[in-house]
Amino acid sequence: MTIEERIPVAVLGATGSVGQRFVSLLLRHPWFRLAEVTASERSAGRRYGEAAHWLQSEPLPDEVAALEVRPTDPTDVHLDSRLVFSALDSSAAERVEAAYAKAGHFVVSNAKTHRMDPDVPLLVPEVNSAHLGLLEHQSAHAPGALLTNPNCSTIGLVLTLAPLDAAFGIEQVHVVTMQAVSGAGLHGVPSMQMIDNLVPHIGGEEDKLETETQKILGVLRGDRIDPAAIRVSAQCTRVAVVDGHTLCVSVKLRESPGLDEVREALQGFRSAPQELGLPSAPDRPVHVLDQADRPQPRLDRDIDQGMAATVGRLRHCPLFDCKYVALSHNTLRGAAGGSILVAEQALAEGRIPGLEI
Amino acid sequence: MTIEERIPVAVLGATGSVGQRFVSLLLRHPWFRLAEVTASERSAGRRYGEAAHWLQSEPLPDEVAALEVRPTDPTDVHLDSRLVFSALDSSAAERVEAAYAKAGHFVVSNAKTHRMDPDVPLLVPEVNSAHLGLLEHQSAHAPGALLTNPNCSTIGLVLTLAPLDAAFGIEQVHVVTMQAVSGAGLHGVPSMQMIDNLVPHIGGEEDKLETETQKILGVLRGDRIDPAAIRVSAQCTRVAVVDGHTLCVSVKLRESPGLDEVREALQGFRSAPQELGLPSAPDRPVHVLDQADRPQPRLDRDIDQGMAATVGRLRHCPLFDCKYVALSHNTLRGAAGGSILVAEQALAEGRIPGLEI
Amino acid sequence: MTIEERIPVAVLGATGSVGQRFVSLLLRHPWFRLAEVTASERSAGRRYGEAAHWLQSEPLPDEVAALEVRPTDPTDVHLDSRLVFSALDSSAAERVEAAYAKAGHFVVSNAKTHRMDPDVPLLVPEVNSAHLGLLEHQSAHAPGALLTNPNCSTIGLVLTLAPLDAAFGIEQVHVVTMQAVSGAGLHGVPSMQMIDNLVPHIGGEEDKLETETQKILGVLRGDRIDPAAIRVSAQCTRVAVVDGHTLCVSVKLRESPGLDEVREALQGFRSAPQELGLPSAPDRPVHVLDQADRPQPRLDRDIDQGMAATVGRLRHCPLFDCKYVALSHNTLRGAAGGSILVAEQALAEGRIPGLEI
Amino acid sequence: MTIEERIPVAVLGATGSVGQRFVSLLLRHPWFRLAEVTASERSAGRRYGEAAHWLQSEPLPDEVAALEVRPTDPTDVHLDSRLVFSALDSSAAERVEAAYAKAGHFVVSNAKTHRMDPDVPLLVPEVNSAHLGLLEHQSAHAPGALLTNPNCSTIGLVLTLAPLDAAFGIEQVHVVTMQAVSGAGLHGVPSMQMIDNLVPHIGGEEDKLETETQKILGVLRGDRIDPAAIRVSAQCTRVAVVDGHTLCVSVKLRESPGLDEVREALQGFRSAPQELGLPSAPDRPVHVLDQADRPQPRLDRDIDQGMAATVGRLRHCPLFDCKYVALSHNTLRGAAGGSILVAEQALAEGRIPGLEI
Repeated sequence: MTIEERIPVAVLGATGSVGQRFVSLLLRHPWFRLAEVTASERSAGRRYGEAAHWLQSEPLPDEVAALEVRPTDPTDVHLDSRLVFSALDSSAAERVEAAYAKAGHFVVSNAKTHRMDPDVPLLVPEVNSAHLGLLEHQSAHAPGALLTNPNCSTIGLVLTLAPLDAAFGIEQVHVVTMQAVSGAGLHGVPSMQMIDNLVPHIGGEEDKLETETQKILGVLRGDRIDPAAIRVSAQCTRVAVVDGHTLCVSVKLRESPGLDEVREALQGFRSAPQELGLPSAPDRPVHVLDQADRPQPRLDRDIDQGMAATVGRLRHCPLFDCKYVALSHNTLRGAAGGSILVAEQALAEGRIPGLEI
Repeated sequence: MTIEERIPVAVLGATGSVGQRFVSLLLRHPWFRLAEVTASERSAGRRYGEAAHWLQSEPLPDEVAALEVRPTDPTDVHLDSRLVFSALDSSAAERVEAAYAKAGHFVVSNAKTHRMDPDVPLLVPEVNSAHLGLLEHQSAHAPGALLTNPNCSTIGLVLTLAPLDAAFGIEQVHVVTMQAVSGAGLHGVPSMQMIDNLVPHIGGEEDKLETETQKILGVLRGDRIDPAAIRVSAQCTRVAVVDGHTLCVSVKLRESPGLDEVREALQGFRSAPQELGLPSAPDRPVHVLDQADRPQPRLDRDIDQGMAATVGRLRHCPLFDCKYVALSHNTLRGAAGGSILVAEQALAEGRIPGLEI
Repeated sequence: MTIEERIPVAVLGATGSVGQRFVSLLLRHPWFRLAEVTASERSAGRRYGEAAHWLQSEPLPDEVAALEVRPTDPTDVHLDSRLVFSALDSSAAERVEAAYAKAGHFVVSNAKTHRMDPDVPLLVPEVNSAHLGLLEHQSAHAPGALLTNPNCSTIGLVLTLAPLDAAFGIEQVHVVTMQAVSGAGLHGVPSMQMIDNLVPHIGGEEDKLETETQKILGVLRGDRIDPAAIRVSAQCTRVAVVDGHTLCVSVKLRESPGLDEVREALQGFRSAPQELGLPSAPDRPVHVLDQADRPQPRLDRDIDQGMAATVGRLRHCPLFDCKYVALSHNTLRGAAGGSILVAEQALAEGRIPGLEI
Repeated sequence: MTIEERIPVAVLGATGSVGQRFVSLLLRHPWFRLAEVTASERSAGRRYGEAAHWLQSEPLPDEVAALEVRPTDPTDVHLDSRLVFSALDSSAAERVEAAYAKAGHFVVSNAKTHRMDPDVPLLVPEVNSAHLGLLEHQSAHAPGALLTNPNCSTIGLVLTLAPLDAAFGIEQVHVVTMQAVSGAGLHGVPSMQMIDNLVPHIGGEEDKLETETQKILGVLRGDRIDPAAIRVSAQCTRVAVVDGHTLCVSVKLRESPGLDEVREALQGFRSAPQELGLPSAPDRPVHVLDQADRPQPRLDRDIDQGMAATVGRLRHCPLFDCKYVALSHNTLRGAAGGSILVAEQALAEGRIPGLEI
């Protein structure tokens, strides 16, 4: 596909931390072409290169720096791109995203706002692409639609739970997270809190882990999702890591497989995005590491372009059936990259009328 | 007590990280006077001020700097101090500590070597001072004796479990630790591992947490300890914190108390060291913090002179009965300070023949 | 002095980072009693214990937690305390401090706003207590007065330059700083910037170092300060340290002393606060360390209650006469503690009419 | 070139930190094929994949993991590769490198051992490729030869000094470094020193910066280098950064150019490796950044594949002519990548008899 033939896409809230990740990933995307960017009133009308305090490691290409920033205005939606990625925070998302969908856009959102809406799919394409069926029931947002990407700590969890649930049935999950600071945005966590310190609390995060996991692993029945009957207990902490959420997971299964079988289920996990060969799909959704001291965020977060989870220290748990340590990249797989993969899956399934690849 | 009247004590392995903490705490101890220090052959014969690369924040007093370092030689034990604190690592402890006990010394050790020996008490004075009764059965080490201090991550755990076990009976404990680098000694953890990173593995640590907890919460029956019938699952990680181990704990109880009762049991916990008014005893073994984002290592580790545990985020657990975050100072309460408190308790109970306060 | 006999003082902007340090130091001050606290409108009327997100390591006493927070309102100044410490940031200071002085208060400020005003002393009591003579010329602020404390990085520099200037005459100073994050306040430096990173820029800081140094080392002539004819070149950087600014200093002197003489000038430095035995004065303003790898922020910032500078690596410079590394605590000596020492010096000299100790 | 046609090369000391960087870079090198690896006796005979604790972010290919590790034995040199990269530390280099050269190998070394030898070129190809002429005079090492790569902090300095020296003549250089921990190897800097801390001392580093700079910027006259008559004053510190050395540089020039001219000299700098289009040559040896707070290690170290220096904050210096902040990647440009570029330059000039590209 030449760059002119690619599908034009827009990014809402393109100047912030997640917005920059979207821009960075779209720069080299084989299907998409970044055509439009929006930001707050303050930035509107400026060139993207001036409005964004660009903090990605690759340089910003001139043609993207030259894009005019449009206002993220829900009362006057006038983007040309049918496919829109939203990097808005939840308060902005609440005011904006539904308006864009009603105006005909397919909005893939990284915000928490609509994740638990009954008719909005909360998607991890390897896990629950079947939930795309909900789009047929989104009359409230027609002619467009809303799709959402889970919370950054949920994704790493469900990528590792899904193959275990499929193979052995999951009953209970205990998870303690050690989350990277980038999850809170550029200015989210003061350095005073992260030098010689950690913070054992992230507002609202534990609830997201508990409820999103149940929805994602649930089953589509008609126009709604039956949440999975899995009990989840989460404790979330913030640690001095830039990127990469680490999770200490204990799982109770309905069956009692041996560790080799558990390992095989994780390592052998393949799903729709892999079969379709989607551009942002990791070769393997889960990589099992055998060294005793892995995964480690700095060493392992970038595996498979930052789109896979890694699992280590897989062993029996004296209280549950097995336990392990999981890691995934929170701003790649957990935010911008995950949303792009959602759009790829929807496109590949022909779920976005008028757009095809 | 004038300084001349204080009980002379020795520190084995006084130049290392834990050794320096012992020296630092003994400098201002009201009962003890640091009379002798030992180190490896390489340092023997030198002044302590030259042999130790002093890294404590208070200056080293001249009279201590002038102490001659003796060799930690198990074949030629010749210390004058009856009470000896061992800051040796486990391999040195294995060669040395029993020899000192046989030579008549009461050795309070911070090493793991003898912790699980059937006739050696593994002591947290607030929790199991009754285990001092084992000393009567230590004929193998007579005329001296061996006493041990638990692993640095175990102490914070059992300080918070003990009042819950006494009040409600504990059946299961799930603990994930985020441990400070000082626990591994001055050179234990390379900075390459701790910048923008964490390591989800500490060799042998999980086993210590699981087995030591059972021994400490066990019951003395004649010449042995019946371990507590508590199942413990531990996952240990190392994070970029200097001092202070943070633990995410979930507990299953035999009874089902309300959170207020759990809180009261923790906050109201007092025990023998508090009643005896021991110099190193914290006013309260456990402080419950109500702010949503506490405890934090840098802010809370030094509470009660670093000898108390702090507990925060106490709440119901969807899988166990309750969960909370606990913090304790690993080189104060968890090492040197804990050992000194053990000695104080033993002295106050008259368990060290020939020494009294 | 009983606590009732102590001089009542107020802190403007008491809820912020520097404000909390003032409160913390005043809690145990032998001359002063914290009587009043102010903060922004938002906090006014609340109890200090509720309004302040207390982050100091010692607990907040009940009587201070119970103080009612007053608004920092320049149009309605009504504090009872004659002596007022200002922890306001510079924009608030600009609107407020002069009004308080005109209303009769002696305001000791930590803000940059009035530091370079010709009639306002910029004080490091060990260095230029003679500049208190400016107070007689502050008719604009009568019946009160304004006194200021230098920028946190300037203080460590001038404490080490002053004895060299007195002994040998300084011509040029080249300084590169590595500054702690607390200098920017609780939320000043995002953790994204301080993990696996440093930032080689602090807005306005280099200019402060260059001009404040000249004023402090200048000479009082009548109603103004003749700045010292010292050329200063500063480069400021921010590094992942909580407290303690480290400075790499090269100095060109008029005379060419040997290193022993330079060392002696630094180590032997004593001045008015030491002679007067002021409560916040360090025993020695400068401590020279001889270990090759010192000073280090975490190990050395708290020396002499955090009120002294430490100097290490003193040696010849191939381009200047000598070079060294200096360290001082930026929120103790460099902010709250320094301001309190200024007040102590002014009081001890009888410069605050109506107040005496 | 097919992989079989590539020049076979060996890496001495391939299991350590710098050795792994060599292996990682050679995996994808268009001219070279990693054919042999050596390590200490302990690892000899094992497969590389077992002997090396692989810590690079890309996976180790199977064919490299399968290489048999040979002993780095100076008494029995038997490598087939004529071109050998040495990642040995200086003590091993002293015993080994000359023996390999005498056995006919062209050894490109990253160790300090032979850098200042009169007949050994100390090379930064953009700066002093003319010094390759020394190879004709290395009879002591014939039939092979020794070439060296400068210290990791020297490279970033001379890359930025060279164009200034060429254009305006340099008289004096004052440099303060803030160096990354990877410069000291995997276990070189304990985390106890790097959390909430920095260390203002790196053994031997300042002398290297001062003397190597003079040699590199010197002129080849017959069989020796006349060192440049530039006086250098260096102060080196270690900070909590994984990769990327930051330097605060002040320069006194013979001419007095405007800042625009200085900027142009840096930004416009091109040299032999760029003209030859060497595979490891950066597009530009120096990138000038205009944002006020750059360069920053985490954001800028990887520019131009980590082979270029970045410069920011270029401005007048009140004491020298100009000052700036420079950054370069210490294990890419400063170690393995720099050595490979040296080999490329030597090959492109036909300086390695029997090998051509």
